Amino acid sequence: MTRVGIVAASGYIGGELIRLLLTHPKVELTTATSRKYAGEYVFRVHPNLRGVTELKFSDYNLATVTERSDVVFTALPHGESIRYIPQLAAAGLKVVDLSADYRLKDPEQYSIWYGFQHPSPDLLGRFVYAVPEINRDEIRHASLLSSPGCMAIATILALTPLLKAKELEIDHDHIIVDAKIGSSGSGGKPSTSTHFSERYSVVRPYAPAGHRHSAEIEQVLSSVAGERVKVSMSAHAVNMVRGILSTCHLFSGKEIEPITLWKAYRGMYSGSYFIRFVRDKKGPFRLPDPKLVTGSNFCDIGFETEQRTGRVVALSAIDNLIKGAAGNAIQSMNLMLGFDEKAGLANAPLHPV
Amino acid sequence: MTRVGIVAASGYIGGELIRLLLTHPKVELTTATSRKYAGEYVFRVHPNLRGVTELKFSDYNLATVTERSDVVFTALPHGESIRYIPQLAAAGLKVVDLSADYRLKDPEQYSIWYGFQHPSPDLLGRFVYAVPEINRDEIRHASLLSSPGCMAIATILALTPLLKAKELEIDHDHIIVDAKIGSSGSGGKPSTSTHFSERYSVVRPYAPAGHRHSAEIEQVLSSVAGERVKVSMSAHAVNMVRGILSTCHLFSGKEIEPITLWKAYRGMYSGSYFIRFVRDKKGPFRLPDPKLVTGSNFCDIGFETEQRTGRVVALSAIDNLIKGAAGNAIQSMNLMLGFDEKAGLANAPLHPV
Amino acid sequence: MTRVGIVAASGYIGGELIRLLLTHPKVELTTATSRKYAGEYVFRVHPNLRGVTELKFSDYNLATVTERSDVVFTALPHGESIRYIPQLAAAGLKVVDLSADYRLKDPEQYSIWYGFQHPSPDLLGRFVYAVPEINRDEIRHASLLSSPGCMAIATILALTPLLKAKELEIDHDHIIVDAKIGSSGSGGKPSTSTHFSERYSVVRPYAPAGHRHSAEIEQVLSSVAGERVKVSMSAHAVNMVRGILSTCHLFSGKEIEPITLWKAYRGMYSGSYFIRFVRDKKGPFRLPDPKLVTGSNFCDIGFETEQRTGRVVALSAIDNLIKGAAGNAIQSMNLMLGFDEKAGLANAPLHPV
Amino acid sequence: MTRVGIVAASGYIGGELIRLLLTHPKVELTTATSRKYAGEYVFRVHPNLRGVTELKFSDYNLATVTERSDVVFTALPHGESIRYIPQLAAAGLKVVDLSADYRLKDPEQYSIWYGFQHPSPDLLGRFVYAVPEINRDEIRHASLLSSPGCMAIATILALTPLLKAKELEIDHDHIIVDAKIGSSGSGGKPSTSTHFSERYSVVRPYAPAGHRHSAEIEQVLSSVAGERVKVSMSAHAVNMVRGILSTCHLFSGKEIEPITLWKAYRGMYSGSYFIRFVRDKKGPFRLPDPKLVTGSNFCDIGFETEQRTGRVVALSAIDNLIKGAAGNAIQSMNLMLGFDEKAGLANAPLHPV
Repeated sequence: MTRVGIVAASGYIGGELIRLLLTHPKVELTTATSRKYAGEYVFRVHPNLRGVTELKFSDYNLATVTERSDVVFTALPHGESIRYIPQLAAAGLKVVDLSADYRLKDPEQYSIWYGFQHPSPDLLGRFVYAVPEINRDEIRHASLLSSPGCMAIATILALTPLLKAKELEIDHDHIIVDAKIGSSGSGGKPSTSTHFSERYSVVRPYAPAGHRHSAEIEQVLSSVAGERVKVSMSAHAVNMVRGILSTCHLFSGKEIEPITLWKAYRGMYSGSYFIRFVRDKKGPFRLPDPKLVTGSNFCDIGFETEQRTGRVVALSAIDNLIKGAAGNAIQSMNLMLGFDEKAGLANAPLHPV
Repeated sequence: MTRVGIVAASGYIGGELIRLLLTHPKVELTTATSRKYAGEYVFRVHPNLRGVTELKFSDYNLATVTERSDVVFTALPHGESIRYIPQLAAAGLKVVDLSADYRLKDPEQYSIWYGFQHPSPDLLGRFVYAVPEINRDEIRHASLLSSPGCMAIATILALTPLLKAKELEIDHDHIIVDAKIGSSGSGGKPSTSTHFSERYSVVRPYAPAGHRHSAEIEQVLSSVAGERVKVSMSAHAVNMVRGILSTCHLFSGKEIEPITLWKAYRGMYSGSYFIRFVRDKKGPFRLPDPKLVTGSNFCDIGFETEQRTGRVVALSAIDNLIKGAAGNAIQSMNLMLGFDEKAGLANAPLHPV
Repeated sequence: MTRVGIVAASGYIGGELIRLLLTHPKVELTTATSRKYAGEYVFRVHPNLRGVTELKFSDYNLATVTERSDVVFTALPHGESIRYIPQLAAAGLKVVDLSADYRLKDPEQYSIWYGFQHPSPDLLGRFVYAVPEINRDEIRHASLLSSPGCMAIATILALTPLLKAKELEIDHDHIIVDAKIGSSGSGGKPSTSTHFSERYSVVRPYAPAGHRHSAEIEQVLSSVAGERVKVSMSAHAVNMVRGILSTCHLFSGKEIEPITLWKAYRGMYSGSYFIRFVRDKKGPFRLPDPKLVTGSNFCDIGFETEQRTGRVVALSAIDNLIKGAAGNAIQSMNLMLGFDEKAGLANAPLHPV
Repeated sequence: MTRVGIVAASGYIGGELIRLLLTHPKVELTTATSRKYAGEYVFRVHPNLRGVTELKFSDYNLATVTERSDVVFTALPHGESIRYIPQLAAAGLKVVDLSADYRLKDPEQYSIWYGFQHPSPDLLGRFVYAVPEINRDEIRHASLLSSPGCMAIATILALTPLLKAKELEIDHDHIIVDAKIGSSGSGGKPSTSTHFSERYSVVRPYAPAGHRHSAEIEQVLSSVAGERVKVSMSAHAVNMVRGILSTCHLFSGKEIEPITLWKAYRGMYSGSYFIRFVRDKKGPFRLPDPKLVTGSNFCDIGFETEQRTGRVVALSAIDNLIKGAAGNAIQSMNLMLGFDEKAGLANAPLHPV
């Protein structure tokens, strides 16, 4: 069994990592750190895990983590991972980072989007931005992985095949990403914004412009498109706990037939278990809906075309805590360690829930 | 007191018309028709009105309606209003229609968007498409009014000032409207799609392209812009009962400052009680959110700019059953009859709810 | 116009008092105090009131409040009202208190239920515990009113007629009150318990025993029953913002017919506008449901009998912020000031919402 | 691998059986029948299973089912199972029935509670009413199992230890069960009652008296108590999809200490993996809440005592589709077939969700 540790395991993403890793057939979860809850049972913080594990949180200690782990997941806030990862990497651990700290290749982008000067720019080049469905081979040969932001991965999975398919002639200046996300995406810390009476039944445009995930989406899409792509992103908080729907509006000068889009998607995702295509003629779920991926690592993808406006609407739905975070990180670890990509991630979504 | 009737009053919009008209200081609700519920107490169908009114539904009868009403609201399904309104108009009644049947000026558009040949195209020219904040004077002189679709009015109120302000140089080919709407927008008829277990916690892209409200939005915007404007609209069902958020993504070749947008909005809406500008620096509700207009006739409007992408995000929030239907219809009636525009509509939104 | 002030108007109950009093035909709202928000516009704290009022919060000052008000509502936390009310009363103001501080007649009960020794026990006798449907006349002659707790008033309205009707022979030792309440009942202060991700979709038994409202319910019921009545109360937080359903399980040695219960209820509540009886044979709302009173001052009451177990189930539903707080307080003020009981409270519930 | 079939697999319980059995390590799901959907892919009806299984529904045929299965689950409506099970049993299949048709021992009870005369009363004696935590050994030796009603099993698990513990002197005439259940408990068929706009935010007392699950609860409790026990049950639909909270109010003439209740519970459930005790001093989840068992087979149990009223409040929370149906049925099958009780059921609950 490969020994796995989690640094900063008390948040929602940490809780999902623990839940999933506890039943992973190839790894043993040895360590879950939390400064605040060191010494506490994990189930006191993640109450769903009561009766499931007797693990306790430990305080972070580099020597202990190194000694007890072969791979480590870091679920630290942005700007915190950079303080831990250089030592973990130097100690020879394989690392899967879930923060934004090693997602962008160009260190200057950190000043622009995150407001800090990156202290270990050399490491940026060693990290692989891990979207298994897109760069599986690269992940297999990596030892440092950066797992994408939740809205970024949903959007990247919806758009990459379309930008790669040059024959679609997608307009690179008018790519609109209108994302809808549940409350768990903003973490477990109470505030007036997350107070139930203020948060119930909202459609809250909390980041109509300038969302940081734009940077990583543009990085991937520009790379695949072979030129600078601009992403116009708006993020909305909606009335649910888990899930993201990314509605992507694209334009093309050409008339685009559904068959061409099918070809682009199938060409890239054939054999990718966690991608499901949803484009039905009947039933309540004719297109992707985050309700239908809850509790799973699936990313559902669908699309619609509108000839009148020259538009393609590409849609993707994920569980933000799984494919948008812990699940994608574990899937990527599986590849890095040579395991079956699906190991520990085979749960079907719950429905109805 | 002006005598008012409602034709087809058993749906959700009918229920709101009744609720609001019952306390309107200037009118008396004399008639509420329903083929299905004729003879039943209104409160059996609209159970919130128990104890509020002893009115009963009556079967539709042209002579009776004509005799007992000075103004009539028609809340019939699309394609049904055209069967009633020519007679009502011929009988000299003032009419406020809430269906789509008299919204479009060009009869050919009905073939394209609604799949029927319009049987009374001559009436189209006599109907005023009523958005009081935009064409108050026209409404004052009309006797036949068509109240806009719910997503249409939200979007029109957000966009008209920006398209009118020529100096903004809004790109007319890339206007994206990403709308989010509650369940009441699809009416009271049960189906698998509206079954609670299937509908709870969804973000369902039910009309990613080709939404019929595009037609009326384009009609208004093209008129104000002085040239053909294309609207790329996608509609999503979200997890709430009332409310619409319309997120409109616009592009301009120019760098647009917030002050310029303020000027455009204030120029058009100064003195319009039901428009509120929401663009705060703190608090959970810094931009429009349908949660905050629940139960009222307000339309909240806000915006954000993004220089990097040349984008303006214009946002509007309404209660779809009030400003999106019954409230706007009554506000328009008030103008048509020379009443205070706010009569019967002064209720503040409920919060929290 | 009678001049009205509100002390401590920044909470949810304060917000409802402001909203309702602003459109009350007989009073003028002159003052709304808030230590924290003094000088701020009311709509910054109660964002639904944007565009509705330009009122600002003022700091509390006895002289100013006294000078500017004929009646004052106090919406202070329990244990705080006692620090303000003696002076307000001494200054000759009429007072409607919404805290628990003057609800109980026996000062010793404050030590037991609230953990403090009551500092002004003499005032307890001068306060009238105001449930207009039960003690209208007493309220009319009072100048100091105490408005009941939200779960208390729902329960008292459901049970008083049944305990008054001696012929029902209700067992006074087995009165079970199983209450379900929305999030607004716990106020506007964020905490882990009210964090959306932790609060969504719960059925949380937050006070299975020992709820403080038991004391006021027992006080009223014991008085009407003429002997000590014990109330076994459990309170649950459920997944909504507004509303209370109180499910009351009673037992009798006698076989009880529905007609007898009808008689008890109608005997007491005939002529009480805000009581609606709900006991239908069909439709989704055959019995009281808080969904159907949202935004109104109604209390819906219904019941069921079960011969096999000798049980009566009495049910009541209210909007906790209106009939459970601000609405009942205003209704009581109306009586105290000789106004129409319904003044300012005529809004029908919203539906669907 | 044991071969398993499901008769009537298109409902919500059928969907959960399929989902769970597909990953069960000891069985192979060979057959899922549905009259309505015969020939259709399972994932067309249970859209969460898209990409998970290529299984199709087959029409029901006794010979085929018998030939292809060693064990069969019947998820038919009440009154339908009796038409299939005698043949399935006669064919030598092991059966786990999820309807009510073989839950009650006394055939006359079917006339009283279900309105039909039981056609195979002889089989009633051969069926074991399966609550593994209570009659594990009996289940191990059975070949015909009846899985309890969802509210019944929650209540039975909360109450059995307390009624077994004679020293508690529980009053058998005043046992009140106030249950709160999510929408999935009423199945997948649309109606006005389940229409989202009518169902959202409700607390609907849909069965305040006379709920059929009372019969099975009384059967179990009377048996363990050694005398006739009466259960006063009320069921409420609340605003969520999955989950049940059963709030049970009991009375005793004795003063009951928490330690005594602990003893009763631990004495019976020690070693029962799926029972978790929840009685914490802090945090948002101090007592059972269905939110915390979502997606799992756990039953969370907790309690509170109230000396003033002589009351014990026993609380239990389950996922109604898992421990309340499919999960308990599979757990029981595991015992019947000699497998590990937890096989196929090890998923931890999701949180937050």
